[in-house]
Amino acid sequence: MTDFNIILFDHFETLDAFGPAEIIGKMPDRYQLHYFSDQGGLVTSSQQIQVMTEPFSALNPCGVLLIPGGIGTRTLVDNDDFIQQLSILVRKAPYVLAVCTGSALLAKTGFLDKRAATSNKRAFEWVQSINTNVQWIKQARWIVDENCYTSSGVSAGMDMTLGFIGDLFGQTTAENIATSIEYLWNTDKNFDPFSD
Amino acid sequence: MTDFNIILFDHFETLDAFGPAEIIGKMPDRYQLHYFSDQGGLVTSSQQIQVMTEPFSALNPCGVLLIPGGIGTRTLVDNDDFIQQLSILVRKAPYVLAVCTGSALLAKTGFLDKRAATSNKRAFEWVQSINTNVQWIKQARWIVDENCYTSSGVSAGMDMTLGFIGDLFGQTTAENIATSIEYLWNTDKNFDPFSD
Repeated sequence: MTDFNIILFDHFETLDAFGPAEIIGKMPDRYQLHYFSDQGGLVTSSQQIQVMTEPFSALNPCGVLLIPGGIGTRTLVDNDDFIQQLSILVRKAPYVLAVCTGSALLAKTGFLDKRAATSNKRAFEWVQSINTNVQWIKQARWIVDENCYTSSGVSAGMDMTLGFIGDLFGQTTAENIATSIEYLWNTDKNFDPFSD
Repeated sequence: MTDFNIILFDHFETLDAFGPAEIIGKMPDRYQLHYFSDQGGLVTSSQQIQVMTEPFSALNPCGVLLIPGGIGTRTLVDNDDFIQQLSILVRKAPYVLAVCTGSALLAKTGFLDKRAATSNKRAFEWVQSINTNVQWIKQARWIVDENCYTSSGVSAGMDMTLGFIGDLFGQTTAENIATSIEYLWNTDKNFDPFSD
């Protein structure tokens, strides 16, 4: 059993975090879901959902890490203490997944340096500006670079998470999960109608 | 400004509730999102998300009501007090939306009697058995019957919620929201590849 650790913060984008959680939750024999924030306690999404979290200090660093985006990332990239903690966590995790502008936080840690990555199309210039050492790719539903997965905006995080499961456990496993939640999975990580 | 009230309970299915919340949250000038449970306080989804809720007693009954599904509905249909409270609320709401097996709860209140409705495909026989006075339709992504919207499983709730917005505020408004969250919206409520 592996921990699947989702990082939350005030003004995270709901579906960035909970779309992937829905999918990972369909593998209860493989993954145990956990929700963390810097200090723990209640954090509130941009859609007014108040979620109880554990503090970073309780996080098992051997788990998979998922970082959502959202308007909260705009200030969080300048929170040195948060970025420093995240920087340590992402380097210990076996896999790191970032959705939407979560890639800005990831870029700020230096973890994406010289890697290929993507992000939300509407915030793309801002995300690029955070770290120009990243090989930013605009047209992509999601990007895989070794153990690092980054996706386009919001809904793309679900496609990426299914892709992650497909890579690790086979396409059939991922397709069965998509069917179980009646989700029309966009299986092609290069298909990105939102990049124009 | 209209309240958009989402009913939660232990073992609700995460995406049933929070997929629609993601979409409704893109209309902050029209809708204010609220999350309720019978007694209020923390409730936990099947994907281990602990969410803070207000009690039913704090709910403005003039708001739109959304009822998610999930494994928690299996016991909740037999909770007479919950069903009685829900029964009052659904009859006051201007619109009622149920996702997945949320339609079982709705059927139990009698609100769906003589109406057309759909539900999750894997739980369809169970949902049907809750109330045979409903005109259950298996092959549908979502169903609209007057002020009552019901959808197929989990992800279908997002398509239905966009359809609801399209019906009330025009297709372009709904399409713009889908684009803003980079969601490939299945606009056809009759397209249901999961019904076989």
